[in-house]
Amino acid sequence: MSSATLPRDRSLSRSSASSASSSSMAVDSAYGSSYTTQASSSRGFASSSKNATATYKRVLTTKSINPHVLEAEYAVRGEISNRANKYAAQIAEGKSDELPFSSVVTANIGNPQQQPYLAQKPLTFWRQVAALTEYPELMQQPGIDKIFPTDTQERAKLLLDDIGSVGAYSHSKGAAVVRKHVAEFIEQRDGYKSDPELIYLTTGASGGVQLLLQVIIAGPDSGVMIPIPQYPLYSAALALYNAQPVKYDLNPFDDWSLDVEAMSRSIDEARAKGVDVRACAVINPGNPTGQCLSYENIQDLVRMAYTKRVVLLADEVYQANIYQPDTRPFHSFKKVLLDFSKSSAAEDQAIARSVELVSFHSISKGVSGECGRRGGYFELTNIEPSVEAEIYKLASISLCPSLQGQIGVDMLVKPPSQGEPSYELYKQETEGIHATLKSRSDKMAQKFAELPGVEVEPAQGALYLFPRVTLPKGAHEAAKEKGKKVDEFYCLEMLDKTGICVVPGSGFGKMPEEETGACFFRTTVLAKETDEFIERYGKFHTEFVEQYK
Amino acid sequence: MSSATLPRDRSLSRSSASSASSSSMAVDSAYGSSYTTQASSSRGFASSSKNATATYKRVLTTKSINPHVLEAEYAVRGEISNRANKYAAQIAEGKSDELPFSSVVTANIGNPQQQPYLAQKPLTFWRQVAALTEYPELMQQPGIDKIFPTDTQERAKLLLDDIGSVGAYSHSKGAAVVRKHVAEFIEQRDGYKSDPELIYLTTGASGGVQLLLQVIIAGPDSGVMIPIPQYPLYSAALALYNAQPVKYDLNPFDDWSLDVEAMSRSIDEARAKGVDVRACAVINPGNPTGQCLSYENIQDLVRMAYTKRVVLLADEVYQANIYQPDTRPFHSFKKVLLDFSKSSAAEDQAIARSVELVSFHSISKGVSGECGRRGGYFELTNIEPSVEAEIYKLASISLCPSLQGQIGVDMLVKPPSQGEPSYELYKQETEGIHATLKSRSDKMAQKFAELPGVEVEPAQGALYLFPRVTLPKGAHEAAKEKGKKVDEFYCLEMLDKTGICVVPGSGFGKMPEEETGACFFRTTVLAKETDEFIERYGKFHTEFVEQYK
Repeated sequence: MSSATLPRDRSLSRSSASSASSSSMAVDSAYGSSYTTQASSSRGFASSSKNATATYKRVLTTKSINPHVLEAEYAVRGEISNRANKYAAQIAEGKSDELPFSSVVTANIGNPQQQPYLAQKPLTFWRQVAALTEYPELMQQPGIDKIFPTDTQERAKLLLDDIGSVGAYSHSKGAAVVRKHVAEFIEQRDGYKSDPELIYLTTGASGGVQLLLQVIIAGPDSGVMIPIPQYPLYSAALALYNAQPVKYDLNPFDDWSLDVEAMSRSIDEARAKGVDVRACAVINPGNPTGQCLSYENIQDLVRMAYTKRVVLLADEVYQANIYQPDTRPFHSFKKVLLDFSKSSAAEDQAIARSVELVSFHSISKGVSGECGRRGGYFELTNIEPSVEAEIYKLASISLCPSLQGQIGVDMLVKPPSQGEPSYELYKQETEGIHATLKSRSDKMAQKFAELPGVEVEPAQGALYLFPRVTLPKGAHEAAKEKGKKVDEFYCLEMLDKTGICVVPGSGFGKMPEEETGACFFRTTVLAKETDEFIERYGKFHTEFVEQYK
Repeated sequence: MSSATLPRDRSLSRSSASSASSSSMAVDSAYGSSYTTQASSSRGFASSSKNATATYKRVLTTKSINPHVLEAEYAVRGEISNRANKYAAQIAEGKSDELPFSSVVTANIGNPQQQPYLAQKPLTFWRQVAALTEYPELMQQPGIDKIFPTDTQERAKLLLDDIGSVGAYSHSKGAAVVRKHVAEFIEQRDGYKSDPELIYLTTGASGGVQLLLQVIIAGPDSGVMIPIPQYPLYSAALALYNAQPVKYDLNPFDDWSLDVEAMSRSIDEARAKGVDVRACAVINPGNPTGQCLSYENIQDLVRMAYTKRVVLLADEVYQANIYQPDTRPFHSFKKVLLDFSKSSAAEDQAIARSVELVSFHSISKGVSGECGRRGGYFELTNIEPSVEAEIYKLASISLCPSLQGQIGVDMLVKPPSQGEPSYELYKQETEGIHATLKSRSDKMAQKFAELPGVEVEPAQGALYLFPRVTLPKGAHEAAKEKGKKVDEFYCLEMLDKTGICVVPGSGFGKMPEEETGACFFRTTVLAKETDEFIERYGKFHTEFVEQYK
């Protein structure tokens, strides 16, 4: 392989630069920024051209590109996680002795199968079916039944009969057979009819949410309600599509419940200011907060959506991560909405028929944790068909979600049933993962709460804890000096001292409390070595409080 | 499984409706459209609520949603392909006797592995590695070497060492090991250094193009040059992001070459009109046109990009589909750009260091045709690092491309090499597919050209033919009566008569010629039963010309 670099002849460069600038001036003087040393990265040949193109004006600069891209923030993969990646690389290169820790714990993102620190084992049934759909020739191998139970082969054949090949584009909504199974899953869950034609398979829930927001947002005055704290996908997408976030608070002192009265008022206030509030995003079970909304809370929300005319975006990707099923079961928005039809009140009847709802689900969470497969779905309820046609067109521009993502959705909604060869192992694996998640969540919450200034309840659902931390005055001063929010400062210190990577509350829009100064952070409950994780964090926090008191 | 439907009590419904409308009026009277019968689809429970909510005003209507979604068009999956889907469903239900054909030929989209009519066989090496990464336990099975050659197991292990699990999110740019292999592939292809940090794995090329356009487009006055005819992803994305398409023509009478002088003038004209022309999309080899640009043509384009200051977006997804390698080889834009550094002229040196280039590639085309896997990549050349950081942030909001898509990219850029166990079969399979594609393309072009009024050259590259068809006056009148463009009318008739689904030229922005009335359509060259395909089409065309002469 040959490789060329560029000469550094200054005289050539200068003349070239001037000719470059003159020609560029001629066509456009709008671009402020000139080629700076920042642009002369150490990357590839560019590094050798620093002076040479010193006055060439790049077309794309942070001054010229889409300003809404600049505005979008995504804290789950921001400064802290980038620093964590650097540490991980350092350790991988065997330079861990330069660090006060021997491993990085990526507790910043719900990525259960991430190696080596989380390493949740994939579900055997899922992977066997996936492998057979990738290489169907396996099913002709003698003795294959010893490796692949017959139901995994039957499922693979059922899927391949419809999709033909995982290498072929499917229908833009997703393969018909998978959407049919999704509809059956929803009908069994809710007891109401579900139409496969109103179900769209997506690239994770993120893909679906972004697609729907793109349709809903008509201009800069369009408003979408988002919870505070919220999963930053929503704020990022609203910034990107240049819409107005209309924020509503979850109450940290009442299981992060939402106050529908207050939400109603904030809609009126926003509309009075000219914001065209169109939709309301609700994450249930909550991310980062882990609450499960009560049936009544959801009912009130649905009524509000009706009277205030807002579309409900129900992010229900954690519906299988429920830790207090008796007191805090999961209620789907669709079921609560359609239950209004059982009431004899005229308005309730109308509510069931009228409120526009989009419900999102994903294969990335639950007990499967198949994030890398990128699969999910959304279901449309009470959406006008002419609008649905536009959603379909938009989906078709991206052709289709990955077929292995679609197959993951099939596994999610149609697991092995009792009596089938894979059932026992599947039951054992899923119950084991669920029990582990619950015990970790409970244990971490209990131990964290014992630390000075840390308040946290066991999660009702999802994969996270969102502790409230009251830090000493010194920490606030030190943060200010460093030009950081106190929660950012705290989380960066945590990473530097322990290798634990978490996300500051402000990354979810939950700012440090003005009166009390208390702040928040989100950690996943996925760390395999839970005790060691708790100890690492506890030691850090205690020392931190001591140092800055 | 229980299932509920809604009551139809009119009296309840009316009162509910009025209360609904009054409450909705109270908050907002801006939404024009009221709930029409159109909304009372035959879907699920909605069908029972037609009259009940006759005056409830939906939030989302085609009047209220994002107008740019309405404007976006994507002909590859539009009216014709939807009708084709209906016919295919009809045939699947065994109702083919109602139709004048027994199968639908989806020649509208490059989807080689689609069953049953195209059914290109997947590459064994790809699928074996994919299966092993899905279910690594296979590698512990006794006698596994008989099924999976050792190099497939080694590749699977190499990938898993880096990604851990296909169920885990990777780095937002894609797995490091795959990006390293992509960089090696590019260095071998071009003879210039490639930096894995400037390579982004994507969800097909479509995902990458949409991401880059989102960054480049700063507002309604931003302009991006697109070829006519063009792959409709570009026009759709520009409509969606509300930017100005600046069109340039490819010359059907000169191998669809592009006229750089004319392009230069159109930039000046657009800028004079206040359009901020920022980028130029070039598809090489061409889609739908199949041309391979000459080295000199690309050189001229690069010079133009420098003097006019436009970013080059090089869509090179068909770079492995080359049918006249001696006379029309593939030249990558990156190689042609960096070759300027070999010149002693000062301006040429500056060009190599200055012109901003994004090069796209995909696993969906070539001889792999792994569309459903959704994988691709783009490489950034001469992009300012601060802009690259924004591209990274935007990519991170969608977390990462599907891992099986990323693994597909690894297979694409790092095939088995001579001496490895899988090499011979891989060579045989890929050469076989390539030869088939070329012979089909040549044969179809030759036979089509024998038909009255049909002009078409054998494709130089890609997977399509784009014949120029001169139709009799009667056809133009019949089309006008039906309110269709003549090429749409012709293609709809083709589908209704033969089951062959193609895309009218106007779907690529190539309108019927005003002077001559000649029009175009795009067909893939993927039909397995090529002779039967040619005969079906030939019979239709001859009868059509006869009928409308």
